[in-house]
Amino acid sequence: MRENRIRSLWARDEAVVNGWLAIPNSFSTETMAHAGWDSLTLDMQHGVIDYQSAVAMLTAISTTQTMPVVRVPWLDPGIIMKMLDAGAYAIICPMVNTRADAEKLVTAMRYPPQGSRSFGPIRASLYAGADYAKHANDSVVGFAMIETRQALDNLDEILSVEGLDAVYIGPADLSLALGCTPRFDQDEKPVVEAIDLILAKAREHGVAAGIHNGTPEYALKMIEKGFRFVTVSSDARLMASGAQQVVKTMRGALPKDAVKPGY
Amino acid sequence: MRENRIRSLWARDEAVVNGWLAIPNSFSTETMAHAGWDSLTLDMQHGVIDYQSAVAMLTAISTTQTMPVVRVPWLDPGIIMKMLDAGAYAIICPMVNTRADAEKLVTAMRYPPQGSRSFGPIRASLYAGADYAKHANDSVVGFAMIETRQALDNLDEILSVEGLDAVYIGPADLSLALGCTPRFDQDEKPVVEAIDLILAKAREHGVAAGIHNGTPEYALKMIEKGFRFVTVSSDARLMASGAQQVVKTMRGALPKDAVKPGY
Amino acid sequence: MRENRIRSLWARDEAVVNGWLAIPNSFSTETMAHAGWDSLTLDMQHGVIDYQSAVAMLTAISTTQTMPVVRVPWLDPGIIMKMLDAGAYAIICPMVNTRADAEKLVTAMRYPPQGSRSFGPIRASLYAGADYAKHANDSVVGFAMIETRQALDNLDEILSVEGLDAVYIGPADLSLALGCTPRFDQDEKPVVEAIDLILAKAREHGVAAGIHNGTPEYALKMIEKGFRFVTVSSDARLMASGAQQVVKTMRGALPKDAVKPGY
Amino acid sequence: MRENRIRSLWARDEAVVNGWLAIPNSFSTETMAHAGWDSLTLDMQHGVIDYQSAVAMLTAISTTQTMPVVRVPWLDPGIIMKMLDAGAYAIICPMVNTRADAEKLVTAMRYPPQGSRSFGPIRASLYAGADYAKHANDSVVGFAMIETRQALDNLDEILSVEGLDAVYIGPADLSLALGCTPRFDQDEKPVVEAIDLILAKAREHGVAAGIHNGTPEYALKMIEKGFRFVTVSSDARLMASGAQQVVKTMRGALPKDAVKPGY
Amino acid sequence: MRENRIRSLWARDEAVVNGWLAIPNSFSTETMAHAGWDSLTLDMQHGVIDYQSAVAMLTAISTTQTMPVVRVPWLDPGIIMKMLDAGAYAIICPMVNTRADAEKLVTAMRYPPQGSRSFGPIRASLYAGADYAKHANDSVVGFAMIETRQALDNLDEILSVEGLDAVYIGPADLSLALGCTPRFDQDEKPVVEAIDLILAKAREHGVAAGIHNGTPEYALKMIEKGFRFVTVSSDARLMASGAQQVVKTMRGALPKDAVKPGY
Amino acid sequence: MRENRIRSLWARDEAVVNGWLAIPNSFSTETMAHAGWDSLTLDMQHGVIDYQSAVAMLTAISTTQTMPVVRVPWLDPGIIMKMLDAGAYAIICPMVNTRADAEKLVTAMRYPPQGSRSFGPIRASLYAGADYAKHANDSVVGFAMIETRQALDNLDEILSVEGLDAVYIGPADLSLALGCTPRFDQDEKPVVEAIDLILAKAREHGVAAGIHNGTPEYALKMIEKGFRFVTVSSDARLMASGAQQVVKTMRGALPKDAVKPGY
Repeated sequence: MRENRIRSLWARDEAVVNGWLAIPNSFSTETMAHAGWDSLTLDMQHGVIDYQSAVAMLTAISTTQTMPVVRVPWLDPGIIMKMLDAGAYAIICPMVNTRADAEKLVTAMRYPPQGSRSFGPIRASLYAGADYAKHANDSVVGFAMIETRQALDNLDEILSVEGLDAVYIGPADLSLALGCTPRFDQDEKPVVEAIDLILAKAREHGVAAGIHNGTPEYALKMIEKGFRFVTVSSDARLMASGAQQVVKTMRGALPKDAVKPGY
Repeated sequence: MRENRIRSLWARDEAVVNGWLAIPNSFSTETMAHAGWDSLTLDMQHGVIDYQSAVAMLTAISTTQTMPVVRVPWLDPGIIMKMLDAGAYAIICPMVNTRADAEKLVTAMRYPPQGSRSFGPIRASLYAGADYAKHANDSVVGFAMIETRQALDNLDEILSVEGLDAVYIGPADLSLALGCTPRFDQDEKPVVEAIDLILAKAREHGVAAGIHNGTPEYALKMIEKGFRFVTVSSDARLMASGAQQVVKTMRGALPKDAVKPGY
Repeated sequence: MRENRIRSLWARDEAVVNGWLAIPNSFSTETMAHAGWDSLTLDMQHGVIDYQSAVAMLTAISTTQTMPVVRVPWLDPGIIMKMLDAGAYAIICPMVNTRADAEKLVTAMRYPPQGSRSFGPIRASLYAGADYAKHANDSVVGFAMIETRQALDNLDEILSVEGLDAVYIGPADLSLALGCTPRFDQDEKPVVEAIDLILAKAREHGVAAGIHNGTPEYALKMIEKGFRFVTVSSDARLMASGAQQVVKTMRGALPKDAVKPGY
Repeated sequence: MRENRIRSLWARDEAVVNGWLAIPNSFSTETMAHAGWDSLTLDMQHGVIDYQSAVAMLTAISTTQTMPVVRVPWLDPGIIMKMLDAGAYAIICPMVNTRADAEKLVTAMRYPPQGSRSFGPIRASLYAGADYAKHANDSVVGFAMIETRQALDNLDEILSVEGLDAVYIGPADLSLALGCTPRFDQDEKPVVEAIDLILAKAREHGVAAGIHNGTPEYALKMIEKGFRFVTVSSDARLMASGAQQVVKTMRGALPKDAVKPGY
Repeated sequence: MRENRIRSLWARDEAVVNGWLAIPNSFSTETMAHAGWDSLTLDMQHGVIDYQSAVAMLTAISTTQTMPVVRVPWLDPGIIMKMLDAGAYAIICPMVNTRADAEKLVTAMRYPPQGSRSFGPIRASLYAGADYAKHANDSVVGFAMIETRQALDNLDEILSVEGLDAVYIGPADLSLALGCTPRFDQDEKPVVEAIDLILAKAREHGVAAGIHNGTPEYALKMIEKGFRFVTVSSDARLMASGAQQVVKTMRGALPKDAVKPGY
Repeated sequence: MRENRIRSLWARDEAVVNGWLAIPNSFSTETMAHAGWDSLTLDMQHGVIDYQSAVAMLTAISTTQTMPVVRVPWLDPGIIMKMLDAGAYAIICPMVNTRADAEKLVTAMRYPPQGSRSFGPIRASLYAGADYAKHANDSVVGFAMIETRQALDNLDEILSVEGLDAVYIGPADLSLALGCTPRFDQDEKPVVEAIDLILAKAREHGVAAGIHNGTPEYALKMIEKGFRFVTVSSDARLMASGAQQVVKTMRGALPKDAVKPGY
């Protein structure tokens, strides 16, 4: 089976540099896949991506060595299994708030006897190789997103679920949950403390921790702190920023109604 | 009929700041359309765009005040008419090398008696208004691309075709034609001289001149020279550059096999 | 943030004239959006519409002042949030049968602290403006569909859920639930009484009431009764009716196997 | 091979009642195909239809007994052959202005020795049956559109091309060509005279004549005159008309910016 | 209403020969639909199929007499109802493990008073006829998949749910559940015994039994045993096998990395 | 630049084993790409493939070492250049009948000064590497199809065009041209003689020869004869054959209306 480089990097205690995809297109994805990221995450929750575009995007990523990750729209076994069958090597699952949620995630990702994933790795076997079924349980990675007060309250219970590989922090939702402004690269105290708590607990439980960042500078700090999966910006926001910089240089200023995608 | 701001800006001797689209997707297009460009050009020649994706992209542009422009793949009346029917307010046509080519372009863009455009502005009438048919001949803009030796030789003949509104320079093809390296923001002498010649002749004939640029700095110089339609970079290249800058900051260097789309 | 005209009309006690979309295409949608409706509803439950076509259709609607509404396929937070992120200004949710159902709907539509909507208004911020996140909770509208006996039994409980803006009646399902023929523009007594009851209770609770109609004549009566959101026919049925009228005029009669889409 | 009902109706001197498709979608097409038309024409010239959507639409038509016709965007052998391979039973070709144009059309539609159609009826053989190749030359129908002054001047030459089955009149283009207003159901004298001339000459040459109409009333008159293939309105215009009638009834009047698709 | 041939064959105690579709394309589906299967199943669970491609595929199947079946991705009323509305004549539902699961399936498939299916057979009425609503409850067929230990334990309870028409065995999942190798055409004893048990119990309860097979030989044996719905291979696997046989003949051997889709 | 294995195999006088694609889908393509072919050809002439699906398919092929080839629909510089930009490593061009045709093909495929290909290798540079532009002229392969009497008459002139790499025989069209039955694996004398003539002349001119075959047995004979590029069957026909074999085994016979795609 094709190696899951996310696990290999973690085995060497290195951080995964992850790109983020919101544009549902294979060419933009292939462009991103050639930029040097360790992994690329298709955002099926807030990105403009559905199943069929996701398959096209996973195919585009498969033309490179970049690892394919999918954030599913919701903790739903149907879509988790479908994305694994399509060749995702990691799943990021939003709104994992309880031990039961975490167990549901782990169970959906593993074949029996460890879980209840249904058998049919239709594209995964093309991407990974004919022995996919044998090794999938040990290879694919599941991230539980910690982004609500409830999840913070249940942190130890969630982190102690057997088979849970990693947690992922969405700072915008976590900020809202704590009464702060929804944004990346937070410095508001309640959010920073929650981030530190999640990281510390995760490391205690031997669970990898990931976080979404707006800038490489903040992401580098997160790696230093101990995060081992850091996302920076997204396809759409990098494009919008680049375009707005050009327009600003051409005109001296941006028009008032210039706006970027809200994620 | 909805005003063609390209003509309005030209009437005030102002330059159109044009963005470029190669990604066949409505969301990336809508993102670009909110960045403040005067116009956006769908590149159906070298971009990954066909008719159906072009319609989706024109629809996305129509959610803003940005003007919709289309570079057609070839001097073919069928596709020129189809894109005008779909609501394009300007057409950029590659490889216009002779007076006959220029006439063919102009003819395809105008209803009789000025030309032989076939009647059926199916989406154009939604975008422009019910009186589209009455005003289209005076509103839509046609650009002839000057990018071969043959075109340089026939410059006066091409520019004197009645109804030709504008010329557009693709520096990469022009460079190849003159034995230079295919790239934007040229400083090789034969190309610079050809660019200056085209600009001078165009102004002589009262024809607007446009040019493709890699950076805003070069584009600003071109406006100073007299160009009135300047393109800077593209959706895919802005995204790729942004992504590579992030990866480089994260890692200290780009991997050797990092590459950007070739346009 | 762009104004939600549904709320503005309601503030003036005026009725929203709503069109209905079942055809998954941006051009047919743009055609409908130019016909003068106050709002257009994408029917993701019984229409032939999925997420990706819905985004294309929302983009088409955004070229006009018509308000975008989405009927989701099911009471599922994942799809409700995805459609709001894509720019829907109102959600119609089928089969809201209990107080818990209504609470689930409201919660999915509001950011914390009022609800648990996850943050990432990717296209909504392009459509609505950069301040979308600040105003979304007060702007977007949620309709609970009342269409089962259980829902009728729980009417007061459902209507008293804080944050529930409106109810919507699907006469076909309501008819089936009451042992009557599934159709619009009902005059069978049990259905008429249920409709009147829902309307009366809704007004009592300060909740707006909407209803699906087959003809403008019936819809006008519903407005007179007090409904403030009336749908008439749909894109597919208007087209089918028009086509069948033409064929009938041409031939004197329709062929026996002529049939319209079943919604 | 499945019978071409267009030829069968003509053999009985009956007129074909033809519907028109501009919306690139299989469900709207299937809806139209169940309305009782003899044939449906996919308009790839002015409609929003490209090859891939055309295949989906031809498939939808194939669920019924309605005959599939395609108007190609231009007199181009590549697309004519591709649409025949996809199962079109008739081709309407725009802008046939000379004898050479008509010969080019006929040649592209027939296998050797009658023409030079390339062999590969990929979907046609599924639709028509395994013996398609044997009978195609005698079954598929080619329409030359007569819509310019040049075509009127060359009428006899065009009509005498062996193997040309039919002509088709686009009244909008014909009107423009004759200095009149581009519209259907013309009563301006130069256009009416040209229509009568084309019809008379066609019958003289044993060639069937077709015409595009705005209303069934006008189409019935055309049948009486001798036309044997009459189109009435289109999917998009029937839908738009229906929608505007509803809105008008609901409001007393249409908003000023209401507009229909321009074909 | 168009006859459901699955029920007609069962009424004569004949077995349905079912093909399987994993490729999300209408042309490959139409090709399969012309091969002589009694029915074709769109696999939305492990196949690369989503809602929009499923509609295109159902349309392709509707060009023939082959019966359209859909395996939904999960026991979710939203998607079950959407696929019935789209014209599916049978639903195969994965992971039906309890009596409650089976009841949920049956309820989602029947209009009141037998169930709670929501009314809106948008494409079903085109495919089946205008009287679809009247006969649908008696015509459409629901298969519960028995593929876990829990389901085996609850077999009698599941099979005694009123309105459950059939069960379907996925041997790969059943094998995994019983600690065996996930594959078709099983001869491992625990799986064979479970298969026999399910068949025996199903017949006892008057419920039809179906099974997925790798080869026609095994499928014929299953029919002899008493199965009345047998699937053999799939579009993708038939294509892959054919391709690999060709390559092997051409080269003497397959390259080491040749692989087939994992379902 | 990524090596063009077609040229490498030819340099070692080995034959390229080529697969053929008519289904416009990335998953079926990826399945084919894992079957061990040296190259896969997207048939845009008779296959159900347009530009956008072709890009998805080229992306799928790029996940493997299989070489991407495109048969364009027609000798049209626009589409030839677009497919090269999309990453095709070889172009098969139908209906090359004269020296001028062959020159047009070669010119469209080479950058100046050898030809007039326009610069913009948008996806080709991702697939091939950043140095694509430098090496493309020497790497990409052009096949002229010899399939008419006219082409046979002009054989020497065609074959002596500088830069023409290869010829390709479509036996069906060649058969029709010579008054024989259109099919693969021909044994009718006029066709066999023409095939032998083309091969002999090609070798004389140092031009590689390719041919389309129905079975591996015939293809092996062709290699023995001297052909160095042999196609066997296609995705759709392999699937259809496999399906019909299964049905035949299950039933004893195929139904009378069973049919395969006509290419």
